[in-house]
Amino acid sequence: MSEMMFDRITLIGIGLIGSSLARIIRRESLAGELVISTRRQETLTRAEELDLGDRYVADAAEAVKDADLVIISVPVGSSGSVAERIAGTLKPGAIVTDVGSTKASVLAQMQPHMPATVHFIPGHPLAGTEKSGPDAGFADLFQNRWCILTPPEGTDAQAIERLGAFWRACGSNIDTMDPLHHDMVLAMVSHLPHIIAYNIVGTADDLQTVTKSEVIKYSASGFRDFTRLAASDPTMWRDVCLHNKDAILEMLSRFSEDLASLQRAIRWGDGDKLFDLFTRTRDVRRSIIEAGQEIDTPDFGRSAAKPADRR
Amino acid sequence: MSEMMFDRITLIGIGLIGSSLARIIRRESLAGELVISTRRQETLTRAEELDLGDRYVADAAEAVKDADLVIISVPVGSSGSVAERIAGTLKPGAIVTDVGSTKASVLAQMQPHMPATVHFIPGHPLAGTEKSGPDAGFADLFQNRWCILTPPEGTDAQAIERLGAFWRACGSNIDTMDPLHHDMVLAMVSHLPHIIAYNIVGTADDLQTVTKSEVIKYSASGFRDFTRLAASDPTMWRDVCLHNKDAILEMLSRFSEDLASLQRAIRWGDGDKLFDLFTRTRDVRRSIIEAGQEIDTPDFGRSAAKPADRR
Repeated sequence: MSEMMFDRITLIGIGLIGSSLARIIRRESLAGELVISTRRQETLTRAEELDLGDRYVADAAEAVKDADLVIISVPVGSSGSVAERIAGTLKPGAIVTDVGSTKASVLAQMQPHMPATVHFIPGHPLAGTEKSGPDAGFADLFQNRWCILTPPEGTDAQAIERLGAFWRACGSNIDTMDPLHHDMVLAMVSHLPHIIAYNIVGTADDLQTVTKSEVIKYSASGFRDFTRLAASDPTMWRDVCLHNKDAILEMLSRFSEDLASLQRAIRWGDGDKLFDLFTRTRDVRRSIIEAGQEIDTPDFGRSAAKPADRR
Repeated sequence: MSEMMFDRITLIGIGLIGSSLARIIRRESLAGELVISTRRQETLTRAEELDLGDRYVADAAEAVKDADLVIISVPVGSSGSVAERIAGTLKPGAIVTDVGSTKASVLAQMQPHMPATVHFIPGHPLAGTEKSGPDAGFADLFQNRWCILTPPEGTDAQAIERLGAFWRACGSNIDTMDPLHHDMVLAMVSHLPHIIAYNIVGTADDLQTVTKSEVIKYSASGFRDFTRLAASDPTMWRDVCLHNKDAILEMLSRFSEDLASLQRAIRWGDGDKLFDLFTRTRDVRRSIIEAGQEIDTPDFGRSAAKPADRR
């Protein structure tokens, strides 16, 4: 697609998202030079071992110099301090974006530090796996996934278009959205599911009537589906909970209300109500498969887990 | 393995589990003759079109005649009426089993009808997908999965061993358990996860601040993982809720307590507590992968969902 889209791109943070970006920027030749920066020396060394970029610079302020595109991929709780650190060395005309899972908080943390000469456009690629760290990334992570941009009012249209073109070159589809609406939508489709998954795995882990080894052994009967989300990066998810509190509490309260009503239907043996809910939810999955956001293979290809000697 | 294990096997019910059994019984030559029975003529015709058995008999009482092994694969709410129907024509010495997800209720429903001359051994293969019906089955469904038998006290040890050998020939590992303990374990590892999944999908479906099309579009960010369970057979799951009420209500109440505490941590910004929970739950997944009950491929092979024209 678009060769050498930017003369220099700087990635701050090189975990799952950052390292996936590095890999696709290389593959698609989207940057003349790719600079990688991360605070922990160990992670930076690992990025270099993996040959993810052209230069490796621990100091973020140094790393962003002369970059045309700066992408910040750190837990959302660190957005403000990163913005503060890089503010003085950003190149006039540069596009600054992030990949955080909450947008109103990122905007509030970063905007005050951003010089008027740069284009600050928060973003959120809706892609991820339960893995973390520079080894976990892969170039196809963003393929056919959505990337939501939440440009502040008055942002230069050309800069938005340029950032959009970058994400499309990474394989994404683009949407733009108001940050508060983004946070509400994500609270439902991403934050609530993760919190529920963490919670149910925690409940199982605490039980005494059912042993942990029983939970593990028999997990294929349903429980297993939750454990992928509950294995996600703890720092990232702590920060999401702290930085999208209101929307998450709103969704949690709706979920709990609905659960109380379902619990009541079970207690009183209201089979019709149960049947109605269980039927209605089937359609949602059908729509997700039709939208190309899931495959229709039973068991998510887990049948591949069969030990070879048993086939 | 064990060729011609039984002279005649009768399957009552030919949905996901029944039809998977039919396929593996054929593949492994576990029966001299395989008789298939189901109440709905349409389903019986479909089973015949799929060539799942040797004979197709609508009347269950007729179908079980001279069978050495009778496997009942119907929603647990129908166990009692099937037992009543077949009681008079069961062959002395026959093994009668079922595949229902709750065991105390099945025992209570079926036992009173069972003649003293047969070996009644309730069972539960912990295997399934979100699909249902005779087309959904496949011979590998039970491979490396657990099958739990809950024989009533005093059951003939040889009959238990024979049924265990049958399930092992289907690829399963065997456990035996007290029916009440089975129901408690399954309430945690299977019933609670399904109920939570149904509930969260219902909550999303009811929202007005977030549209249904947004939920679908952005589902890959977490929500999607719940939709597989929430697409499971409504009749089966209604019956599970009605027939394992006490254990399910117990697990639901623990889950809700834990969720209230998590909600409080979010409201009060208790980052340490969130981080602790989110770290602890990672280990559970690791153990499940080590136990061979899950594969360690990020995204459950969903990357295969990429449209070919975008690669």
